[in-house]
Amino acid sequence: MNPEVSQESIDRVVETIERMGFKAHLSRGQFRTVIGAVGEEGSLDQNHLASLDGVEKVVPIMKPYKLASRDFHEEDSVIEVGGGSVPKVKIGGEFATCIAGPCAVENEEMLNKIARLVRAGGATILRGGAFKPRTSPYSFQGHGEQALKWMRACGDELGMPICTEVMDTRQVELIERYTDSFQIGARNMQNFDLLREVGKTRKPVVLKRGLAATVKDWLLSAEYVLSQGNRGVILCERGIKTFEDSIRYSLDVTSIPVARQLSHLPIIIDPSHAAGKRDFVPAIAAAGMAAGAHGAIIEVHYCPSEAQCDGPQALLPEVFTELMGQLRQIATIFNKHFTKSAAPVGA
Amino acid sequence: MNPEVSQESIDRVVETIERMGFKAHLSRGQFRTVIGAVGEEGSLDQNHLASLDGVEKVVPIMKPYKLASRDFHEEDSVIEVGGGSVPKVKIGGEFATCIAGPCAVENEEMLNKIARLVRAGGATILRGGAFKPRTSPYSFQGHGEQALKWMRACGDELGMPICTEVMDTRQVELIERYTDSFQIGARNMQNFDLLREVGKTRKPVVLKRGLAATVKDWLLSAEYVLSQGNRGVILCERGIKTFEDSIRYSLDVTSIPVARQLSHLPIIIDPSHAAGKRDFVPAIAAAGMAAGAHGAIIEVHYCPSEAQCDGPQALLPEVFTELMGQLRQIATIFNKHFTKSAAPVGA
Amino acid sequence: MNPEVSQESIDRVVETIERMGFKAHLSRGQFRTVIGAVGEEGSLDQNHLASLDGVEKVVPIMKPYKLASRDFHEEDSVIEVGGGSVPKVKIGGEFATCIAGPCAVENEEMLNKIARLVRAGGATILRGGAFKPRTSPYSFQGHGEQALKWMRACGDELGMPICTEVMDTRQVELIERYTDSFQIGARNMQNFDLLREVGKTRKPVVLKRGLAATVKDWLLSAEYVLSQGNRGVILCERGIKTFEDSIRYSLDVTSIPVARQLSHLPIIIDPSHAAGKRDFVPAIAAAGMAAGAHGAIIEVHYCPSEAQCDGPQALLPEVFTELMGQLRQIATIFNKHFTKSAAPVGA
Amino acid sequence: MNPEVSQESIDRVVETIERMGFKAHLSRGQFRTVIGAVGEEGSLDQNHLASLDGVEKVVPIMKPYKLASRDFHEEDSVIEVGGGSVPKVKIGGEFATCIAGPCAVENEEMLNKIARLVRAGGATILRGGAFKPRTSPYSFQGHGEQALKWMRACGDELGMPICTEVMDTRQVELIERYTDSFQIGARNMQNFDLLREVGKTRKPVVLKRGLAATVKDWLLSAEYVLSQGNRGVILCERGIKTFEDSIRYSLDVTSIPVARQLSHLPIIIDPSHAAGKRDFVPAIAAAGMAAGAHGAIIEVHYCPSEAQCDGPQALLPEVFTELMGQLRQIATIFNKHFTKSAAPVGA
Repeated sequence: MNPEVSQESIDRVVETIERMGFKAHLSRGQFRTVIGAVGEEGSLDQNHLASLDGVEKVVPIMKPYKLASRDFHEEDSVIEVGGGSVPKVKIGGEFATCIAGPCAVENEEMLNKIARLVRAGGATILRGGAFKPRTSPYSFQGHGEQALKWMRACGDELGMPICTEVMDTRQVELIERYTDSFQIGARNMQNFDLLREVGKTRKPVVLKRGLAATVKDWLLSAEYVLSQGNRGVILCERGIKTFEDSIRYSLDVTSIPVARQLSHLPIIIDPSHAAGKRDFVPAIAAAGMAAGAHGAIIEVHYCPSEAQCDGPQALLPEVFTELMGQLRQIATIFNKHFTKSAAPVGA
Repeated sequence: MNPEVSQESIDRVVETIERMGFKAHLSRGQFRTVIGAVGEEGSLDQNHLASLDGVEKVVPIMKPYKLASRDFHEEDSVIEVGGGSVPKVKIGGEFATCIAGPCAVENEEMLNKIARLVRAGGATILRGGAFKPRTSPYSFQGHGEQALKWMRACGDELGMPICTEVMDTRQVELIERYTDSFQIGARNMQNFDLLREVGKTRKPVVLKRGLAATVKDWLLSAEYVLSQGNRGVILCERGIKTFEDSIRYSLDVTSIPVARQLSHLPIIIDPSHAAGKRDFVPAIAAAGMAAGAHGAIIEVHYCPSEAQCDGPQALLPEVFTELMGQLRQIATIFNKHFTKSAAPVGA
Repeated sequence: MNPEVSQESIDRVVETIERMGFKAHLSRGQFRTVIGAVGEEGSLDQNHLASLDGVEKVVPIMKPYKLASRDFHEEDSVIEVGGGSVPKVKIGGEFATCIAGPCAVENEEMLNKIARLVRAGGATILRGGAFKPRTSPYSFQGHGEQALKWMRACGDELGMPICTEVMDTRQVELIERYTDSFQIGARNMQNFDLLREVGKTRKPVVLKRGLAATVKDWLLSAEYVLSQGNRGVILCERGIKTFEDSIRYSLDVTSIPVARQLSHLPIIIDPSHAAGKRDFVPAIAAAGMAAGAHGAIIEVHYCPSEAQCDGPQALLPEVFTELMGQLRQIATIFNKHFTKSAAPVGA
Repeated sequence: MNPEVSQESIDRVVETIERMGFKAHLSRGQFRTVIGAVGEEGSLDQNHLASLDGVEKVVPIMKPYKLASRDFHEEDSVIEVGGGSVPKVKIGGEFATCIAGPCAVENEEMLNKIARLVRAGGATILRGGAFKPRTSPYSFQGHGEQALKWMRACGDELGMPICTEVMDTRQVELIERYTDSFQIGARNMQNFDLLREVGKTRKPVVLKRGLAATVKDWLLSAEYVLSQGNRGVILCERGIKTFEDSIRYSLDVTSIPVARQLSHLPIIIDPSHAAGKRDFVPAIAAAGMAAGAHGAIIEVHYCPSEAQCDGPQALLPEVFTELMGQLRQIATIFNKHFTKSAAPVGA
């Protein structure tokens, strides 16, 4: 639309798009409003649209993902996690943030202890697994709703929004009741029904890249969420499957500048699952930040040898704190800054 | 158990295993009955079990998958698909079979036409997609329950068991009502909730290998289904993600002898999705059979250019028929034979 | 050129091409002669060429490889290995052949013993390593020229052409004196100076695919050999590097129909180096033949546990013989037949 | 050896090791001297060695690479490039350095111009290709000795040691005459004869990681050079082959902390060849530094569109200068500093 377009003209264009059988998606930038018309290609009458009042130009987006594309939304998106019982935390653009916590929520005490440690170290969002995807059916599968309750209480007490994994469409409603943001695991990146379900909520979604997914596949999965009206997608690079056998997965740092060139969505890294061994977590985390990430999601445990899940990759709290110091310095070089934990709501 | 063990002794062992907090899984071979005790390692009193009547020896299975392992079930498993309104089709051991049909069920007429063509060509099970997993949210997503009804009617009329993909836990009940066997797609191979849900049914499951899954990961996913009591797992190799860009995926033929050495489960190949181009489908299908597969699942369309989904990989009916002739000859070299379509039930 | 073109017209075209600063490559098929003009694109006067006597049409080949392309040479190439002191063996088109022998030539006695066993089993070309590429500098590196002498004598006695690996440009002259064909290993597939050196000889070259090479990269490496005037390139698929860890390399069977569609060169498989374990060699070899290969190169040892190099992948002689029987049957299905060993020259 | 060991005792141990048929390699650290005995395992009399004067303990190194292992040389190695007609440049430990220049040396003028620009931007070693490895035989292959002469003159004039690629054993002697350091390309990482030849010289070797090489393979290739007595190996991570198709290769940042844990050798990154597109070079370079690299090798061109080779990946001089500023800041965070160009010798 023209820079000085009226609300009336915007409404008219939206209405016209919808009459043509398309979905209209509004994106208001600093200088300009863009209206996306999403639907089956070919059937849109571009000439008619171009003739409407206030329309500057009509640009067909040829990429298979549209709402995720920078063509549709030129500036970096800034996503807010939290609100309500906890302060909001921003991520994207100049705002970097760290999501940290244990792999699985084992019990209330360990959760509270680790949450305090990671908050002190610089994390602003608390992670923790209530439902755990495990390659073996005989491994610990998580404490379910009980763990969600512990997380909600802990997040509220410390003023930290929480983030937890959803694995199945049937869990979405339950988890939505407790959490501030969803995590979709790498193995579910192309579980399209699940993507659609979280897309129907209005809670941000941390979307991990699949182990064999190209950046394009990843953005198409983001598009599933976005197309349902949920604009809060945070991409998360967590390593891809390669032939190298000295680590679990190879963090693909190049995906960061590539995804940022193609898309306006914020992108964070998961050095813990990529490395699989705590020794390599700091170097990978630093690499990801230097490549342009908006933060990291990191597993921390005060006693990794007793962790019920993925102990070998959990950082000790003091190492986490030192790493955060380095990440903050790297962010500064690239004109970003890490958000700080606000006081709890009502504190 | 000893070869000449009594049913009473077997019952006693099963009861003891369950009292110890384990699940007991019976496997009756030609000469011997094996009883699996599945649960958390360490807490089983092996000495006590060894002392029971009829017990020949107690063998701890160290592999992370147990029910899928050849240690637990030495002979090849033979799975039966169908029964009830359609004849049963065997797969595994000496029995090879071909599952064929369109990618997506587009309408009743095309389904019936293709079903007749593939039956005439040598297929014994009819495939067809009712719910389609698509990388883009804007692509055709399938006709859902309507397509299931068309498939059921068509299978019954021709005497062919049917096979269709399930993508979401919420669809399991609906699809189970119509289908003779489930298909789990590569992108859902580690959708653990879905594996458990189909594991609770008693319909066979064609489990495609994930694009970045090792053979061990794949057998662990089979274990999710098996551990719920469903013994009808048919492995399906459909290509892995590699750097080679002249085709979509690289069919990993070596996975066939590897999986057959580690597991008793039947294994088939999907040359259509591996190749992505019909030109290469016959060579890949032949390669898979020669490597030891128990058959193939192949997409066929009489007019691929009009297919709503994956047209470029569908074989023309006459090419399919010629390929089946070659596969039959290869099977003979390796002491297998393709099952033949029986007359419809009640015909 | 026109089907009925005269030698004079051909000479004239060749002369013109060379005057334009290009290399002329003649390829005489059953019905037609094709003349390739290879050089920097852009500077060839196509109109002038088209106007010459006997020229049917001028076709610019856009593929980066030209002499290796089926556009340049439509029919399958048939390469002859041997001649002189040993009978010639054909490979390509309808002719399949098996190259077999020990990994490294350890001593004269073992070589002679294994050569007799593989000849009896159906091999027509004898392989054996004189210079061995080893990942560790501390492993056995081969017996060098002494091993070449033993191979020459053994090949002559049994009437089998020999094939041995060349690793360094400085060895080409020495090895050429003894061998009937060169092998270029996967790790040297892009050792361009080496490719050029063997390209200057007139002995056929078995060119293994690099572990991370696409089919296009492979054909470009073949082009290095061909561009020096050596038309005897035999492609050899030996597995690519993937994430799968149950075997050493994943034999990429799809590369066989892909390479055969793009190129006229014969293609064989190396199941021994792909598998790394003898258990999986027969299944992989059979898969490769069924996918369209013109034969295989297989390592055999009568006592693998004592082999100085790659013992675990060597087939026992009786397993080799059984496998050859299966490969012969598969070849028949696809209208190929294995060449048979002729009597020694002078026998 | 004991910290206070005498030279006499050291000589005695070396002599004993050699009498046993092993090679003795001395490594003098700040506090301790380590003597490596390299040869076939099993035949060394460890008890006898342990009984000699000054021997603190005898440690069998089980890794297949020995001289490259941190077990053999605990502290980071610092390699010096240059000396003689140019100042020495240090790399390793706290010393980071940047090697920069054009891909291929196209002519003297462009070389001199780019050399001045990269020196001003912060590079201390000048790179440039005289012999170019090209996937196609029809691409520009470099100016050979003439380019070496231009590089030598330019390096001497600016006080910059030079680095150029060697592709063939027959070029080693020629290139050694001109260069201060060799580069071994990714495609030659397992060209074992070439590794041995450069190992016989005393000029440092930048050893690029092969496209399908694990970190272990890479260190074994380093061992080939080291085992010939050349201790100047600089590892160079340049990306591995993966399925991701938005860039040429995926820079494997994790290899940096992994290689540094296993080995004492310095490690640099090549963001230009990994990315293949200049847009992504800065992000990848920054990521590599943050992961712990000791610098980078970067291609720069003032007019990339006219480059005869790999133009799309060359940085513009002003972008290079800006990037160097960021790399310097990242180095500081991790207690490294970039070396500065000294004045030319005799200036």
